[in-house]
Amino acid sequence: MAQIDLGIPCDMHVHVREGPMCELVTPTIKEGGVSVAYIMPNLQPPVTSIDRVSEYKTKLSKISPDTTFLMSFYLSDLLTPEVVEEAAKNKLIHGIKCYPAGVTTNSTQGVDPNDFSKFYPIFEKMQEFGLILNLHGEKPSTESCFSEKDKEDITVLNAEEYFLPALRKLHTDFPDLRIVLEHCTTQKAIDTIMDINKEIKDPRDIRVAATITTHHLFLTIDDWAGNPINFCKPVAKLPSDKRALIDAATSGKPYFFFGSDSAPHPLSNKARISSVCAGVYTQSLEIPYLAQVFNDHNSIDKLKDFVSKFGREFYNLGPHEIISKDHCILYQKSQVVPNVITNADNSVEVCPFKAGESLNWSVKWEPVF
Amino acid sequence: MAQIDLGIPCDMHVHVREGPMCELVTPTIKEGGVSVAYIMPNLQPPVTSIDRVSEYKTKLSKISPDTTFLMSFYLSDLLTPEVVEEAAKNKLIHGIKCYPAGVTTNSTQGVDPNDFSKFYPIFEKMQEFGLILNLHGEKPSTESCFSEKDKEDITVLNAEEYFLPALRKLHTDFPDLRIVLEHCTTQKAIDTIMDINKEIKDPRDIRVAATITTHHLFLTIDDWAGNPINFCKPVAKLPSDKRALIDAATSGKPYFFFGSDSAPHPLSNKARISSVCAGVYTQSLEIPYLAQVFNDHNSIDKLKDFVSKFGREFYNLGPHEIISKDHCILYQKSQVVPNVITNADNSVEVCPFKAGESLNWSVKWEPVF
Repeated sequence: MAQIDLGIPCDMHVHVREGPMCELVTPTIKEGGVSVAYIMPNLQPPVTSIDRVSEYKTKLSKISPDTTFLMSFYLSDLLTPEVVEEAAKNKLIHGIKCYPAGVTTNSTQGVDPNDFSKFYPIFEKMQEFGLILNLHGEKPSTESCFSEKDKEDITVLNAEEYFLPALRKLHTDFPDLRIVLEHCTTQKAIDTIMDINKEIKDPRDIRVAATITTHHLFLTIDDWAGNPINFCKPVAKLPSDKRALIDAATSGKPYFFFGSDSAPHPLSNKARISSVCAGVYTQSLEIPYLAQVFNDHNSIDKLKDFVSKFGREFYNLGPHEIISKDHCILYQKSQVVPNVITNADNSVEVCPFKAGESLNWSVKWEPVF
Repeated sequence: MAQIDLGIPCDMHVHVREGPMCELVTPTIKEGGVSVAYIMPNLQPPVTSIDRVSEYKTKLSKISPDTTFLMSFYLSDLLTPEVVEEAAKNKLIHGIKCYPAGVTTNSTQGVDPNDFSKFYPIFEKMQEFGLILNLHGEKPSTESCFSEKDKEDITVLNAEEYFLPALRKLHTDFPDLRIVLEHCTTQKAIDTIMDINKEIKDPRDIRVAATITTHHLFLTIDDWAGNPINFCKPVAKLPSDKRALIDAATSGKPYFFFGSDSAPHPLSNKARISSVCAGVYTQSLEIPYLAQVFNDHNSIDKLKDFVSKFGREFYNLGPHEIISKDHCILYQKSQVVPNVITNADNSVEVCPFKAGESLNWSVKWEPVF
């Protein structure tokens, strides 16, 4: 039976929440084949202070001591360049996440993507200290579709495309700032990332990269229409977009790497008639899901770099920053995705992606001597 | 206070189901300001026999004796030209509904829209006896998005557009058959209907018309993304499509008329994480909803023809076929849409469109002397 050593997989976009949900899902990072997790700051209230990010990291490390947690701030008016500098100098954070206001879970305190200029002092500091800027790349949908004819109609379908000029402008204004377009979902986003990187010869010169999630390699619009379990933001788009994402993920291009955006929600917040929470929970089986797609596209040999190399290089993670040196070993053993993941007293229930379906791959951890 | 006499409104696309649901929603046809309802045949099993359609009509008439029910057959292999002829001669049905297999609620026994030829003997009979062909105009989504590059990617977004050539072919092959493209949702569908009718001078010469629903005049993709209550098939599309629908509904063009496609589902079939039932329930407030849109677009004067004239003319309904001659009177009185509509023992619960929101209009019935 073939075994594939995937090294030390890094998931550069992880939501683990707080409280009982956090206790339930944090251990599943490792179970899903991931050793290093870049943790999102969209708690309530958002993570914007030294104390808060330190406490959060301590909590997570207590739950899963073997997992490496990379922390982030939430870009908002509550942040100052001074706090950012202090956090960077003390290696408390690796980056700052920028949410346009209102586009997804806990983004109400986000920013106006039409004008980032008030955050330029913060971006200066980030550039100086090598922090990553993580962009949720969507423009908020326009409220009324009866604005004047020349006004843009922004919907969940083209929200990412409309954001791309803002990405280019940020890169122009801060050419040394490392930026990640998170969870990209469209051919146009992929094309933009490739265009920005077209002159790159040395991966160390990459300044604009993109993460690709697990679920967007599987889903199209038809899969979430009528299936809230597959509803997330940005929404999965057209079959042609999905093809572009798979091509990018399996391309071996170092500016496309893994960030699952695994986003657990209580089952009761998914099974309702309105205001369904956006997010797909993939954490507990990340690597088996990915192996399925990569194998189906004859690219299993490209999986290791996608999960263990490109992201780690972009984030400049040294060996001393990685807590466990164990390797993730992928092997062919089928398993059925459970219908629900729950804690001991069943007070929290999360439905995993592809619940009830079969996967052909499993993972285990092995020390390297 | 202004009152508007809307005459005798006809809703040319109504789902009232069977059993307790039927008992709950059938009376709401009249409550919503509609006197004549063209009833859909997608029961389980579908309505394909003389006995079944007679029984169904009897049941409905018993529940709501004042409402005029126009009945339909479900196009399937179970129908024969002989049965169609008999039903037509006895005035048991006004038309036949064609569902592409698998596109919406109870459509598994529908037809393959790539090839209608096996139903041509039935269409001959329909043309001969003046029956209406009602088309659910969607091509089923393609299963795999990894078919060869030259294969079409059909999704819920372009499923209607891909159906339009089949509509044109049917019209070419049966130039005298009266056809309705039901619940059209796209600018492209509207354009096609206008193009087919561009030489029409006399409304009696119209052979291809389209119904427009209530909810599609309000919704776009963003409204059903994450809100199963607004999820229906065909799905609401882009803001530009919605504008085209409103322009058509308020245009005064006689080939666009009202068919709500009000489709009640038990709340439990809407509030779930997968396989959400497709359908928006608007029946109990059809005319107040429509008045809101028409008034917002300075077209309240166009509402009467849209609901009471164009559809009735296309269906050739004589005065003798209308049970109640009472007129629907629209007047300005605000009301709040209830959160749920339920029966006496609460065994059936349906969530109405725009639950909890305010509407500015109400309706009442008045005899005409």
